[in-house]
Amino acid sequence: MTTTRQDEEPLVVMETLRIGLLGLGTVGGGAARLLLEQPDRIARRAGRPLRLAAVAVRDRAKPRTIDIGRVPLTNDAFGVVADREIDVIVETIGGTTVARELVLAALAAGKHVVTANKALLAEHGPEIFARAQAAGRAVAFEASVGGGVPIVQALGVALAANQIQSLAAILNGTCNFILTRMTGEGLRYADALSEAQRLGYAESDPTLDVDGTDTAHKLAILVQLAFETNIRPSLIARQGIDRLELADLTYAGELGYAVKLLALARLTASGLDLRVAPTLVKRGEPLAEVRGPYNAIRVVGDAVGDTLFQGRGAGAMPTASAVVADLIDVATGRAQATSRVARLWADSQPAHDFAPANTIKSRYYLRFTIADQPGVLGRIAQILGDSGISIASVIQHDSGDDAPESSPVPLVIMTHHAIQADLESAIAIIDRLDVVHAPTVRMGVED
Amino acid sequence: MTTTRQDEEPLVVMETLRIGLLGLGTVGGGAARLLLEQPDRIARRAGRPLRLAAVAVRDRAKPRTIDIGRVPLTNDAFGVVADREIDVIVETIGGTTVARELVLAALAAGKHVVTANKALLAEHGPEIFARAQAAGRAVAFEASVGGGVPIVQALGVALAANQIQSLAAILNGTCNFILTRMTGEGLRYADALSEAQRLGYAESDPTLDVDGTDTAHKLAILVQLAFETNIRPSLIARQGIDRLELADLTYAGELGYAVKLLALARLTASGLDLRVAPTLVKRGEPLAEVRGPYNAIRVVGDAVGDTLFQGRGAGAMPTASAVVADLIDVATGRAQATSRVARLWADSQPAHDFAPANTIKSRYYLRFTIADQPGVLGRIAQILGDSGISIASVIQHDSGDDAPESSPVPLVIMTHHAIQADLESAIAIIDRLDVVHAPTVRMGVED
Repeated sequence: MTTTRQDEEPLVVMETLRIGLLGLGTVGGGAARLLLEQPDRIARRAGRPLRLAAVAVRDRAKPRTIDIGRVPLTNDAFGVVADREIDVIVETIGGTTVARELVLAALAAGKHVVTANKALLAEHGPEIFARAQAAGRAVAFEASVGGGVPIVQALGVALAANQIQSLAAILNGTCNFILTRMTGEGLRYADALSEAQRLGYAESDPTLDVDGTDTAHKLAILVQLAFETNIRPSLIARQGIDRLELADLTYAGELGYAVKLLALARLTASGLDLRVAPTLVKRGEPLAEVRGPYNAIRVVGDAVGDTLFQGRGAGAMPTASAVVADLIDVATGRAQATSRVARLWADSQPAHDFAPANTIKSRYYLRFTIADQPGVLGRIAQILGDSGISIASVIQHDSGDDAPESSPVPLVIMTHHAIQADLESAIAIIDRLDVVHAPTVRMGVED
Repeated sequence: MTTTRQDEEPLVVMETLRIGLLGLGTVGGGAARLLLEQPDRIARRAGRPLRLAAVAVRDRAKPRTIDIGRVPLTNDAFGVVADREIDVIVETIGGTTVARELVLAALAAGKHVVTANKALLAEHGPEIFARAQAAGRAVAFEASVGGGVPIVQALGVALAANQIQSLAAILNGTCNFILTRMTGEGLRYADALSEAQRLGYAESDPTLDVDGTDTAHKLAILVQLAFETNIRPSLIARQGIDRLELADLTYAGELGYAVKLLALARLTASGLDLRVAPTLVKRGEPLAEVRGPYNAIRVVGDAVGDTLFQGRGAGAMPTASAVVADLIDVATGRAQATSRVARLWADSQPAHDFAPANTIKSRYYLRFTIADQPGVLGRIAQILGDSGISIASVIQHDSGDDAPESSPVPLVIMTHHAIQADLESAIAIIDRLDVVHAPTVRMGVED
């Protein structure tokens, strides 16, 4: 045979892999620290030395907690990207404008790219991976989802023999910390958020975390890996934790459930069911017991069955663990091998459509706010029943001796499996009743 | 520059990867099924087709549940290994004699090897990996530990930037099933074992599972990956579940703990602390809640922090998921890249020594069998105290109205952290007391 065989590669020269780092914040600073503090360990595992050759930051004068020694520090990121002495660019600056330009420029200059930027990949994946493919360069992104949890590797490589059937994941440590404190300590949302900010688990503007945007970006990346389907994150049905009331966490607890902000993807006969939403998970199930700023991803594959991956979803060193793993993969050539075959974001025709709402089934938690008078439960049960929705359990506490008789009271219902479209139309009818005083709260139940 | 760079590889020819499969039992049958039923999926993820080219079994006439169609079936395994039309050998026959010869012959014939054989790697790793290195061929073994859980990939690749600090793992689904049934249903060991055998979770001769040998083999492989240390499995302190009494699971439960057969590896200042033993894990901790035939591995790394990997540890299709993932890695060249740099089992000088017993600290569960008379608890507490062991909690039930007054009674003590060597010498003294009627049961507590 005269063809070149992929599994018989030329002998390797122990050449140093030279790294240009963009950004020296939490993620960039952690990656720099690991590269500078553990050169021997990393070289041993990469088969050759990795050298931090240049670091670009916006403001060179800003005080830093990390000492990068003699590594050149510049504010010219485009200069680093164009530098012929650099083999791979690590992008940790975030955002989707300058970061996009830098990543595209790096690929055009023949460099591999390692990035932690989930928003960039979720929004511009098709463009970036098309350019990488054309340039024959790798884009590695383990750090973009799950922090130190190697879920990108798991879905893209280790479980590659499977058709993934479902994902259910806690992907935002800020939200999970807030929910843990609300559930465990009975804190209201605003107080738990303040505590998260004080402890550094939430940013001063937490909007993208708590409204579910960050989780939707990460889900879009996981859906690409697991289902070979390119989905714009803005099209994923999304609900955050910012409007959750403590009462619903308490009632869920009485029913034996924890409330978690889940990213959900399920391959059904009628297509992909995707959503980001606060969801009830039975206590004792692994996802229900994930506490504090941790991430966890439950993956069900047709061969492997159900698996769980759990760890720290954010923070300097967990994320650095993922960034440096990607750099080692570039140094060994594994990242290039993966990029050659994976064809990520490459298909104009998605492998799967969305499942329509009239095919999606779930059990539901419902909280009605009703007038404290006889017959209301009966009327609501009747409307639900007319839509084919049956009731599994009910919580109705009396309003207490202190409450004025006219105060509305909560009525909590857990349904059996119901079709989402049927549930929504029943609730639309119920919310128009004169004995219903506020929009009905609903959450799905993860089975 | 004229050197060949590792990250600039020649264009790939879409050549079929031809597979010779040795064995068609649970693991081999599952791998054959996945390869034959999902050729398109696997080719897409491997970048080229994978073809099952030959299958070798001991007895061609034996009835099979799997139909391998037109794939040649032979009883000449050495013929398959020597076949020039085959690129990679999948070894699923088990054992350490013929399997060793076949794997060495495959490497000598220039073939890559994928194996699920933990005993073979644990016993003959140095020889096999030295031959693979010399031949420039890959040995991939994801299926050897954790079934479908990609823990080999995680430790060898995804967490490569870390110094692993500790592992705590449930690696034998048979034992975990038996312990789950004993704890949950109050079954005695022998009855839970019978049930496991009836359900196919335990073999007719379950010795290697229940005495901890299988877990020790798997731990030796994980220690090689995590600590770059070559340890003979026979040197790992090992205790199985075959002498566990239901009473100890019940008392552990009263104290808030589950008993799990754990493989433990911890890097301490004085070396590696390795053991396989029934161990108390606090209820609510993820490892305590792993039920039935599942595996779970807790990994702590210096950068990533603590992570958990969980899934089905055995069975045809979960294990096939791992075998075919390895085949895809061979097809893409990733397995070769990993084998080139990993230098597994290559160091004659282990990276770490064993930690001596006088440096190992743990909390301990102790069950004494004592005479039902005043003062015994005091004497035992005194001896423990003299050895610097302090008591955290005590359970002493009375012996019940029906018991004859002379019946010995159990005394359960949970200690604070104690040095293992001190504990052993205190127990040696206690077990010689005339008021102590049976050897003291002890188990460590995983913190």
